[in-house]
Amino acid sequence: MADRLIGQRLVDDMTDAELDRAARVEAVLPALRAAAEQADAAGEFPVGHVALLREAGLLGLVVPQEYGGLGGGLRDLAAATFAMGSACPSTALAFFFHNTSASRGLLPLEAIDAGLFDDADVPVVRAFAEQVLRRMAGGMWLANFASESVKSASANIAISTTARPATRDGVEGWLITGEKSFGCATGVADTYLVTARLDGTDTAAGLALFLVPREAEGVASRPAWDGLGMRGSANHGITLQDVWVPATEALTVPGAFVKMLQCSRGSFVGNQLAITAVYVGCAQGVYDETLQRLTSRTFADTGRPIAESPMHQVIIGDMTENLETAYLWLRRQLLLETSEPPIAPKHEVYRQWRLAKGSICENAFAVAVGAFKASGTSGATLHGTMGRALRDLSMGLVMTFPPERGRLEAAGMITADRANDLFASVPK
Amino acid sequence: MADRLIGQRLVDDMTDAELDRAARVEAVLPALRAAAEQADAAGEFPVGHVALLREAGLLGLVVPQEYGGLGGGLRDLAAATFAMGSACPSTALAFFFHNTSASRGLLPLEAIDAGLFDDADVPVVRAFAEQVLRRMAGGMWLANFASESVKSASANIAISTTARPATRDGVEGWLITGEKSFGCATGVADTYLVTARLDGTDTAAGLALFLVPREAEGVASRPAWDGLGMRGSANHGITLQDVWVPATEALTVPGAFVKMLQCSRGSFVGNQLAITAVYVGCAQGVYDETLQRLTSRTFADTGRPIAESPMHQVIIGDMTENLETAYLWLRRQLLLETSEPPIAPKHEVYRQWRLAKGSICENAFAVAVGAFKASGTSGATLHGTMGRALRDLSMGLVMTFPPERGRLEAAGMITADRANDLFASVPK
Amino acid sequence: MADRLIGQRLVDDMTDAELDRAARVEAVLPALRAAAEQADAAGEFPVGHVALLREAGLLGLVVPQEYGGLGGGLRDLAAATFAMGSACPSTALAFFFHNTSASRGLLPLEAIDAGLFDDADVPVVRAFAEQVLRRMAGGMWLANFASESVKSASANIAISTTARPATRDGVEGWLITGEKSFGCATGVADTYLVTARLDGTDTAAGLALFLVPREAEGVASRPAWDGLGMRGSANHGITLQDVWVPATEALTVPGAFVKMLQCSRGSFVGNQLAITAVYVGCAQGVYDETLQRLTSRTFADTGRPIAESPMHQVIIGDMTENLETAYLWLRRQLLLETSEPPIAPKHEVYRQWRLAKGSICENAFAVAVGAFKASGTSGATLHGTMGRALRDLSMGLVMTFPPERGRLEAAGMITADRANDLFASVPK
Amino acid sequence: MADRLIGQRLVDDMTDAELDRAARVEAVLPALRAAAEQADAAGEFPVGHVALLREAGLLGLVVPQEYGGLGGGLRDLAAATFAMGSACPSTALAFFFHNTSASRGLLPLEAIDAGLFDDADVPVVRAFAEQVLRRMAGGMWLANFASESVKSASANIAISTTARPATRDGVEGWLITGEKSFGCATGVADTYLVTARLDGTDTAAGLALFLVPREAEGVASRPAWDGLGMRGSANHGITLQDVWVPATEALTVPGAFVKMLQCSRGSFVGNQLAITAVYVGCAQGVYDETLQRLTSRTFADTGRPIAESPMHQVIIGDMTENLETAYLWLRRQLLLETSEPPIAPKHEVYRQWRLAKGSICENAFAVAVGAFKASGTSGATLHGTMGRALRDLSMGLVMTFPPERGRLEAAGMITADRANDLFASVPK
Repeated sequence: MADRLIGQRLVDDMTDAELDRAARVEAVLPALRAAAEQADAAGEFPVGHVALLREAGLLGLVVPQEYGGLGGGLRDLAAATFAMGSACPSTALAFFFHNTSASRGLLPLEAIDAGLFDDADVPVVRAFAEQVLRRMAGGMWLANFASESVKSASANIAISTTARPATRDGVEGWLITGEKSFGCATGVADTYLVTARLDGTDTAAGLALFLVPREAEGVASRPAWDGLGMRGSANHGITLQDVWVPATEALTVPGAFVKMLQCSRGSFVGNQLAITAVYVGCAQGVYDETLQRLTSRTFADTGRPIAESPMHQVIIGDMTENLETAYLWLRRQLLLETSEPPIAPKHEVYRQWRLAKGSICENAFAVAVGAFKASGTSGATLHGTMGRALRDLSMGLVMTFPPERGRLEAAGMITADRANDLFASVPK
Repeated sequence: MADRLIGQRLVDDMTDAELDRAARVEAVLPALRAAAEQADAAGEFPVGHVALLREAGLLGLVVPQEYGGLGGGLRDLAAATFAMGSACPSTALAFFFHNTSASRGLLPLEAIDAGLFDDADVPVVRAFAEQVLRRMAGGMWLANFASESVKSASANIAISTTARPATRDGVEGWLITGEKSFGCATGVADTYLVTARLDGTDTAAGLALFLVPREAEGVASRPAWDGLGMRGSANHGITLQDVWVPATEALTVPGAFVKMLQCSRGSFVGNQLAITAVYVGCAQGVYDETLQRLTSRTFADTGRPIAESPMHQVIIGDMTENLETAYLWLRRQLLLETSEPPIAPKHEVYRQWRLAKGSICENAFAVAVGAFKASGTSGATLHGTMGRALRDLSMGLVMTFPPERGRLEAAGMITADRANDLFASVPK
Repeated sequence: MADRLIGQRLVDDMTDAELDRAARVEAVLPALRAAAEQADAAGEFPVGHVALLREAGLLGLVVPQEYGGLGGGLRDLAAATFAMGSACPSTALAFFFHNTSASRGLLPLEAIDAGLFDDADVPVVRAFAEQVLRRMAGGMWLANFASESVKSASANIAISTTARPATRDGVEGWLITGEKSFGCATGVADTYLVTARLDGTDTAAGLALFLVPREAEGVASRPAWDGLGMRGSANHGITLQDVWVPATEALTVPGAFVKMLQCSRGSFVGNQLAITAVYVGCAQGVYDETLQRLTSRTFADTGRPIAESPMHQVIIGDMTENLETAYLWLRRQLLLETSEPPIAPKHEVYRQWRLAKGSICENAFAVAVGAFKASGTSGATLHGTMGRALRDLSMGLVMTFPPERGRLEAAGMITADRANDLFASVPK
Repeated sequence: MADRLIGQRLVDDMTDAELDRAARVEAVLPALRAAAEQADAAGEFPVGHVALLREAGLLGLVVPQEYGGLGGGLRDLAAATFAMGSACPSTALAFFFHNTSASRGLLPLEAIDAGLFDDADVPVVRAFAEQVLRRMAGGMWLANFASESVKSASANIAISTTARPATRDGVEGWLITGEKSFGCATGVADTYLVTARLDGTDTAAGLALFLVPREAEGVASRPAWDGLGMRGSANHGITLQDVWVPATEALTVPGAFVKMLQCSRGSFVGNQLAITAVYVGCAQGVYDETLQRLTSRTFADTGRPIAESPMHQVIIGDMTENLETAYLWLRRQLLLETSEPPIAPKHEVYRQWRLAKGSICENAFAVAVGAFKASGTSGATLHGTMGRALRDLSMGLVMTFPPERGRLEAAGMITADRANDLFASVPK
């Protein structure tokens, strides 16, 4: 392969197996790029992309080969969302959320290996975990619905969606009711992976997982959300009104969620960094197009490229520094979460993530602002490259948490070794 | 009057006459505010606003009373565009451009008083100048079309639109051909004030002004420009193909444009600062709404306002500093351009403007980014307050010139007392 | 007067009386400038400056003429500390602290006029206040010692120095014990104005003022403080061990301190902004010298001034913006605290000060950093202009409070209308 | 080894051999730390450090084992200057400059291997190169004097020191005359490595190297330079007045210098990044001490650590981000210059360095400013940890080139693939 793959700009030491998987990603990029502007304009996920990614085998990208997947890891996922982000950030974002579902298979299996579960619970935990992985590898788009709109001062994510036991036709199961405010591939994914609290619990130990078919009775898409950016990711979320799920489609073992989190190597469930790779990919895309534009257009009086004006040199220098800074944080986080043996203990990996997330997104946004300034009024359109990048990258400032929050949380950990709770149950 | 007018937040020492004029502005704000979201969504100037502002007498806001206007000055204009900017930035922007037309009446009259014109030229210059002022005061919306899309390394604005003499039906006149890339109230204003170069000239001395009726033969609106922000200002510009204008509707005295510029007190034609007042008004609006939102919504677990979280305190502190910094630069520029006697020589006023323009717009944009971050994903919509402000305020980063250019130009003036040419003729 | 006074760069609309007072300041600047480098190197206040300023009448600069002073106000004080700051920041700082003592005369008199004191207390309050003013006007350097090194989470300044009643030789008086960590003109001023808490009190109502002669028994200078900057201001502070002060040299009326504060127009005791004028003056000084240097030195190969290199143009643009931003905040605060009638209520003036203090000092420091970068290694000396400015201006980042604290306090006031206590008594 | 070595904070994947070498560095740190404050106060290099480092074998740290050295590479050097920087930045800086001399041995040998020299020149080049390496390994401190004070608009370093042929007592040799403005270990090093231009040449091809004994006739130390920081590095430079050097102590083969540069992997002569490791080490040191201080001191009223105040949390968050950003740029540059096989072509490595140098130094300086703010007036002393770090780290803003220049040069390379010349000959 003479030319480097786009994903190699982020992961510059890919193994041969990683290169093979990255080549599958590379192959779908033209289709993503071609549909990006329209997806943004319409505010809709390009429906054909589900089949496109399924046929490329990419829905099983991070599923181990023993469960039928491609056997990729976090490096593959980050390279993939990065490469897709340079073509269509919305699709990259939705694809990222699909892949986060894999952690609900992988982490429970690790927790079993680590002896965190009672023997009695092991079979049911294993069954659920393997089922998640096999379905993803089999081509099921599994959208991960965790966040809710309620805000808690003490936790990053507050869950008020509630499940209570309910037998139907003699089959044990659960009735789920609640609202998920954010989750990509709404109305697009085959199945929704819903996090809910078991009725009567008020700690993270009561959190449980449910596999909810898109068309299940009681499930409805919320009204389309008119987002400023990432408009093609179908992230409007769902409502669940007494949605019945059989027990075999649930992981309700008390404490399973907490035990699972203990096995992640760093950021939350161990793959959050791949969402920031979407933003860096988008930033690289707008940077490239801006430079191409500025070096090919010329001043009427001197015939020299516009890029050479003193003002443009200043902006290009700043943009380049911003873009590279985003890469640096992302590559380091990836190293921290994937190196064997680990080069830092988990609490340091986690703390670093609090800073990394904000730094990456802030720098990526700064690239878009620089591109916007450098391109002048003629590039300042709603749907063109610069305007779209500005809008898409602005979303990184609010998703998960803003940089100011990350820095304060890191400071809190440093001074008091007191980590913020990730999840909290909020009784109604 | 018990409550302060919105405009007084910017100009806090209004005279009684200024208060009267500001009250006229205040009266139209509810209508502007009501139409703002729809104007942005549709990308169209609300057509009823022309009559609204005409009937309020505001089209003659800065026209001296002797020509039938309200007699306002730059302080009135800035207070007006600021107040309107807090309600509908697009309308404020279009209104600003209408008012800049007045400089083409006022400055020539000043140049006559200053003895800059030969006696023989005085009558024709005076006739044109008074005509501009009387029409504005009479309720004509006079859109000012100066900018073009061609870029020059040595000048801020390059003019390639050309006028050549042409007699029609025995009447002396001019044929104008060219393209104006940016100008608010396209297709809305009654008359376009077009800057063009006389055929055969290649310096600023050859620049001339023409009053072109909106419906004149050969005039066409360019395709609607899908701007990222300021979408309701109808700024798509026009093309002129052999548009004939009688000599009585033109100011073609050689050097008139340059002489006119010599009489301005500071920023270009002496009122540019009022465009930045639009952005500051918009920033104040989004700031107010963000604080209202953050102090009224509460955390589910503590019941305390979201505004009190450490992260929100940091962002609010930063936003407040950004907003106030924008005000400071704007108020100072206004003082420099209006104080009697002047407190600084013109070249200092002009140099200060190079810095002020960028600082104001950059700080106003930073307020929008802060509001966006502080409001979270729920506020991150395309058409809501935060998303709209982010888009509208981004336009301030590119209009006129970006902050990086202003700083470099100021540095150049400081080190070399070498000012950049404002206008250059670009032969085709 | 053909040339403008240095002070007019800050206060550009001086009255004739202000110009006269500013001319007195201007006259001492050459002596200040000549002694500045040596004062910094030795870490000592130039002892001759006491007589210099006394003979110029400047120790009574802000004392009303009816008490023998020059009748200046806050505008005079700011212009003076600014001008002195451009020549010798340390002297300017010490002079500032002397002048703050005047507030202990002026504010009690205002509180009497406002009817805040009981009739019975009026004579003793008036006697103390007038005594403070007459002594200053008479040429006494009255150093104001308020701060202590103890830190309180809930107040900006915590006072643990304690006074208890003690009759000596039949004369009523007080015994004062404590330590004052910071106060300029230590060992230089004729008299120390000491704030202490009355024994047995624990609120601001128990704060009292004492005039302590420099050579009084029990008073000692703390070891010379090896400050990074402002090294010539003799700010090492004092210890007081059972220092007896007669009752006639004290203001111990309960609540007097609090009532006094109620009469200030803004920042604390109403003149804090003049300390930031010291920093802006210093920043202007290093800016001027840097530009002089960069425009007079040339590149060996091109013969062009070093100032014209692209890098220097960027730095000069940034420095100019930083310097101007510092001026803007300072001029605005001065207007807010001196305009008649007031243009903003006291709580807004106070809130603005929380932001202004940090913004002024941070921008002034940024000017020094820019000057340092632009001057290269040859200017990077400990005692030269750039090194000294960097050190002197760094002190503005920590004196009173850092910018981060000011922004957070402003945010707190905005969101909760909850102001921080200024003073707290800390029982031992 | 239970605890990690300090150098591992930078290079976190050391080999066993690297760990051994790093342990030698670790062993000298206590002595460096103990002498640091006094070295700064006196402005003198601690003379005992020469023997200390010699006896530890560290003067041959980067000399290959075949020439008697420890066999370390760039990773070792960066880890060493980083670790020393956390103890005594001045010593680290001087040690860095000694080690840069090794490039004058290593790069010519690489150039020979690459076939860049004519066969006839090979023996003389090899002899000089091996001599440099063997002497370093043998314990000679070899100070590298390249920079001069003359500035060139077109090159980073301009050389006007001149060598002309001169036979003495029948021995061929050179007479060198000129002035070196900056070079650590002045008056301390055993031998000075002097770069000069051969008389009659005016391009980089005429640059030559000379080994000049410290006590040679005609060599004099310039007056001690009163630097703002790095005061213990003896960097005042030398003058050479007709200093005779035998031909065997010189490398005067035309073009040798240019050929040597062609073999470096990135930043200039291939080790510049190790100078920035000094600054990062210093930043880590002041960060650690600041946190230790803030978490152990408490508020008088609440008893809680000062570090927990909202203001301190903000500053700590920012400092942590700045520090980590410095590490990220430095680690990446180290990877780019040491990875086998290379992960980027030389021009990208070089371009990245233009950004990295400034970003590292600017972030390290920001850490010092944060530490200074957070520590308050009590920490704001000239010679204490915070004041010293602020001064030492300020030097990184001017050494080599300021960040603004690096960004502009990177932009120039990006837009025009036009690199700046590194050296230029300046005829007198």
